[in-house]
Parts: sequence; C-alpha cells; structure tokens
Amino acid sequence: MTKPLDVIAIGNALVDVLTHAQDDFLIERKIEKGSMSLIDADQAENLYSQMGPAVEVSGGSAANTIAGIASLGGSAGFIGKVADDQLGAIFKHDITALGVEFTTKPMREGKPTGRCLVFVTPDAQRTMQTFLGSAGEVSPADIDAEQIKRAKITYFEGYLWDQPPAKEAYVKAAKIAHEAGKKTSLTLSDSFCVHRHRAEFLELVDGHVDVLFANEQEIIALYETDNFDAAVQAVRGKCDIAVITRSEKGAVIVTPDETVEVAAHPVDKVEDTTGAGDLFAAGFLYGLTQGKPLAECGKIAAICAAEIISHVGARPEADLQALVAKHL
Amino acid sequence: MTKPLDVIAIGNALVDVLTHAQDDFLIERKIEKGSMSLIDADQAENLYSQMGPAVEVSGGSAANTIAGIASLGGSAGFIGKVADDQLGAIFKHDITALGVEFTTKPMREGKPTGRCLVFVTPDAQRTMQTFLGSAGEVSPADIDAEQIKRAKITYFEGYLWDQPPAKEAYVKAAKIAHEAGKKTSLTLSDSFCVHRHRAEFLELVDGHVDVLFANEQEIIALYETDNFDAAVQAVRGKCDIAVITRSEKGAVIVTPDETVEVAAHPVDKVEDTTGAGDLFAAGFLYGLTQGKPLAECGKIAAICAAEIISHVGARPEADLQALVAKHL
Repeated sequence: MTKPLDVIAIGNALVDVLTHAQDDFLIERKIEKGSMSLIDADQAENLYSQMGPAVEVSGGSAANTIAGIASLGGSAGFIGKVADDQLGAIFKHDITALGVEFTTKPMREGKPTGRCLVFVTPDAQRTMQTFLGSAGEVSPADIDAEQIKRAKITYFEGYLWDQPPAKEAYVKAAKIAHEAGKKTSLTLSDSFCVHRHRAEFLELVDGHVDVLFANEQEIIALYETDNFDAAVQAVRGKCDIAVITRSEKGAVIVTPDETVEVAAHPVDKVEDTTGAGDLFAAGFLYGLTQGKPLAECGKIAAICAAEIISHVGARPEADLQALVAKHL
Repeated sequence: MTKPLDVIAIGNALVDVLTHAQDDFLIERKIEKGSMSLIDADQAENLYSQMGPAVEVSGGSAANTIAGIASLGGSAGFIGKVADDQLGAIFKHDITALGVEFTTKPMREGKPTGRCLVFVTPDAQRTMQTFLGSAGEVSPADIDAEQIKRAKITYFEGYLWDQPPAKEAYVKAAKIAHEAGKKTSLTLSDSFCVHRHRAEFLELVDGHVDVLFANEQEIIALYETDNFDAAVQAVRGKCDIAVITRSEKGAVIVTPDETVEVAAHPVDKVEDTTGAGDLFAAGFLYGLTQGKPLAECGKIAAICAAEIISHVGARPEADLQALVAKHL
C-alpha cells in the first residue's frame, strides 16, 4: 500500500466489554472510579464472572481515535496486536470496515486478544479494568518505516508506556516520523497512567511531541500543579499544540502564543463517557490534517465527542462526516 | 439444582452482530428486509466482510425472552448449544449473569458458536442473516426431564423447526411438560419461518400448544387469510391463549371466549426493533406465571417491548423489574 495517510496510530488493540454497574460494585472491589487499571488473565476471568450482562464493542483508545478519523473521511492506519481468535477477528473487522489500514500480524499463539472490562456507573462515568492480552505484545518489529513515513501525523496513546516493548515501538516510530519531517502526537491517556510514567512523559512533552492531548486531571497530574491555569502555563511552549479537554466545560487549545477556547457541543443525554477523549482527539487531528484553523479543529472535535457520549460504546454509531457537515 | 422455574426455554444460542445499514445494502444482496434467513459459514464470513463496524450482544430469540423474564425477577432456565469458544463464553456469561439456569454442555469440537448478523435500517427495522453454528446442534440429549418438570411453562422458538434434531428436542420436552401437568408455549418466530413449516405449525397450534405468540404477519401466514381479523377468528380456540402482536398498534390476546386489547407502550424514539417480539413474550410469560390477569400480562409485555426497541440490541439494558414497577 502506498497511499498517503492523514494519521497512523499505535495503540492497544482491545475489545471493550461494557456493562452498567452501581457505584457499590466498584467500592466493594476497591476499584477507583474513572480509572483504567491493568489486570491479568485470572483477574479478568474472575471479574468477568461477577459482571452483569455486557455488550462487546471494539475499543482501545488510539484505535477509537483512528475509527473516528476514518468515519470523518480521513485516511488512517492502525498498528496494534490482536490474537488469531474470535475477538481478534471482531477487532480487525470493525476497524478495516471503516477503511482503516490495519496490517499488523495477529499473534498465532500465546495470549488471547485483549479486552477492557468497562463499568458504566449511573453518572455515565466509565471505569476500566484492562486485560492487555496480545495487545501488550506490540513491539518495534510491528513498525513499518514506510507506513510511518506515509502519515502526516503518527499518534500514540500513553497507555503504551505500561509495556516496555510497546514503548520501544513508540520510540522507533517517533524517530522515523520526525526524520521524515512528519509530526507526532501523544495522548496522556489517564491520570493514573500519568502518575505511573510522569518523569518520562515530562521529558517527552518537552520538545518531542508536536501535538499533545490531555484532560484537566492528566495535565494537572503531569505538572503536579494545584490548579488548571498553572498547568496550562506549564505546558505552553513545550509542544506546538496542547489540547486540554475539560468535559462539559469544553476544551482549551494552547500554542506558544495563543489560547483558543472550545465550547462543549450540546448533548441531549450523556449515556456513557467511554471514548470521549479518544473522539475529541479524532476530530481535532482530522481537522488539523485537513489544514483547518485551530478553532474549527476544536469544534469538529467537540461534535465527535458529543456523539460518542450519547450512546454506550466508544466507537461512533453515526456517520461523523455527515454529523460534522450538519453542525459545523 | 432443584428450584422451581417459571419458564424454561429451548432455542438457538446465538450472539448478535449488529450494524446499521442502508436499504440499498440489502437490495443489492437480494436480502428480504425484515426476514431471518439461515446462511452457512462461508456465506457468513463473506457477508461479515462486507458489513460495517458492528456491536456484539448476546441474542437468540428464546434466549432474549428468558433474559427478559430473569430481568423481571422471574426464575428461568435456558437450553441451547454454544461452542467452547470466545463467543460461547460471552453467551454463557450474559445469560447466567442474569441468574438464568444454563447447563447445556458446550460443543468441544466442530462448529463455532452461532451468530446472527443483524442489519438495522434507518426505519429501525432489523433484517437477520443467521449462521447457526453450534446452536443448530441442540438435540434430545440436551433435554433434562427433571429440569423441564420443574418449570411452569416450557417455551420454544419456531426457528427450532429449521433443524430436525432441535425439533426432536422440542417434541421430547413438550411431552415431558404435558405429562407433568405443565404448560407449553411457542412463538412462530418469523413469517418466513411459518412459510417453511406451515403444515407442522398448524398441527402443533391445534391442541398441542397452550400459549402461542405470533405477530400479525405470522398469524396471517399461518392461516393464509387475507386479513388480521380472519386470522384471529381462525386461531381462537386452537390454544388456551394466543398473543398476537401488531407493532405500534399494540397486541391482541385471544382466548376461547375473550379478546383483550393491549395498547403499545410509548417510546421516545424507536432505535432498533430487534427483540421486540422476544421481549413482549418475556413480559407476558412473566405476568402469566405470576398469576396476573391477561390485561396486566399484556401491559407488562408492552413495557418490556418498548424498552428493547429504544436501543440497539435485543437484551434489556434497563432493569425491567424497576421499569415495570414504575409504569404499571
């Protein structure tokens, strides 16, 4: 394949297993609401046996972003590791059905395809317990230099830092992208993830990432400030563009010399916030690769985030291209 | 296990693979809108490769009904065949998480767990292409006489008639139920299914089924009448209770000497009609086994059907017991 790509992403290839749960379910099991924690196969089996009936939808943070970009009409690729099993086939089907280039070889033996057990509480918050499975096996061998060079932006999820070979894959891809004069983009993923990898993320953000995505909690965790404004001051100038999302308060786009405020797009009813940040990043990166001004990138992003939180699951149900055309 | 059961069902153990599709998608492939057709493994693979991104939810007509009864607080059991694979584990998890007794042994080798590719068109209608897989292997050996005797009602889906061993399982279970002084119930499933098995269904309904479920198209197909009233006249007296659903026009409950009209329960927006009939049957059978009057059984049924068509997928997302308490 030789077509140019707007965005290629490296991330965890996961299938989400979504269920509704009461707060007590999380409290009894000492699971922190709103967090993403890694669990092993036995823990996943055990927790699944205690979960209510669920719905399965392809997920994975960066994969959700890529699905969003494809739904917007962007050309996109994904690098991530599934196993040669039914969940892997589901993941592969769902992303390629959107026209995404997904050529990473599945694992033939060993761990099964990873899954993320998602508990949606009555306040529409999501709490995630992830069994990485094959997803955690992504490594430098999965990085095809020619593919990276074809993309305007190479996008990474911070969750990759939880697995050393995945981090090495990031390092390899980022080097290829920058040497080819292309951009890199990173999402901090989760404030707990930031706590786990703060020193490395700080070093990365300071000059090695062109477009940074974070939410309010993540950017505060990164700079260990006690308020949002101080965190915005801290990040300004560290990367070309920092996009900080604030749920219903919208988002702030921070560049070395300007600050652009983005309003949240209205939603009738917030059903499930799973994927809100992922789809915000999708809209923003799509706008950016189409050469749109920052304010418009932010607006597209807000429309995409609004779509995803209006239903259960982190993959778009609506045609995002049509939705943006209607609301922009 | 020795607890009494309100309802035990025998049906196809399937996982639904749901996607949105335009009418043209069906027309181009000569798939009749609103129908359920059986396809083989190769056809399923081929059609799946052409489908858009999908969501996986446990399904199967009678299994959906049983899930509904359990969500209403009824005690329920299910007999159906999954394989020892990931989709089978999902099916088993989802039904047992509701407290349903599901002890049918999974197939260790051979066909994978069955799946139903569901295309939801913009009018919220569903069209189904089913690869039965292991589901089609249910047989008399899967019928446990003691379990059937514990249930007030043994419920069957008409789709079983598409596989001879499944039909034999029905015959065995119905005989056990009736000899134990218990009731049997059948849904005609689908008008295309009625066309395939009309002679047998006619014989069954005439004296061998206590509670019959059908929709308008199915009952008209069964009696080959040209209007609804004639079909109602034809079925009256053939079984204790015939429940005929008519979508937004509600339903009619027909007994040898009375006719009870049931209004449809209001829905803000119909998203996906998959499972409407299954959940109507759930509400009705739950009411009946709790000794409620027919009009109340119908009202519970209408509330359950309204819940299922307000979202994608044929398994309840809300707690039906709470919903019925609120609206009854």
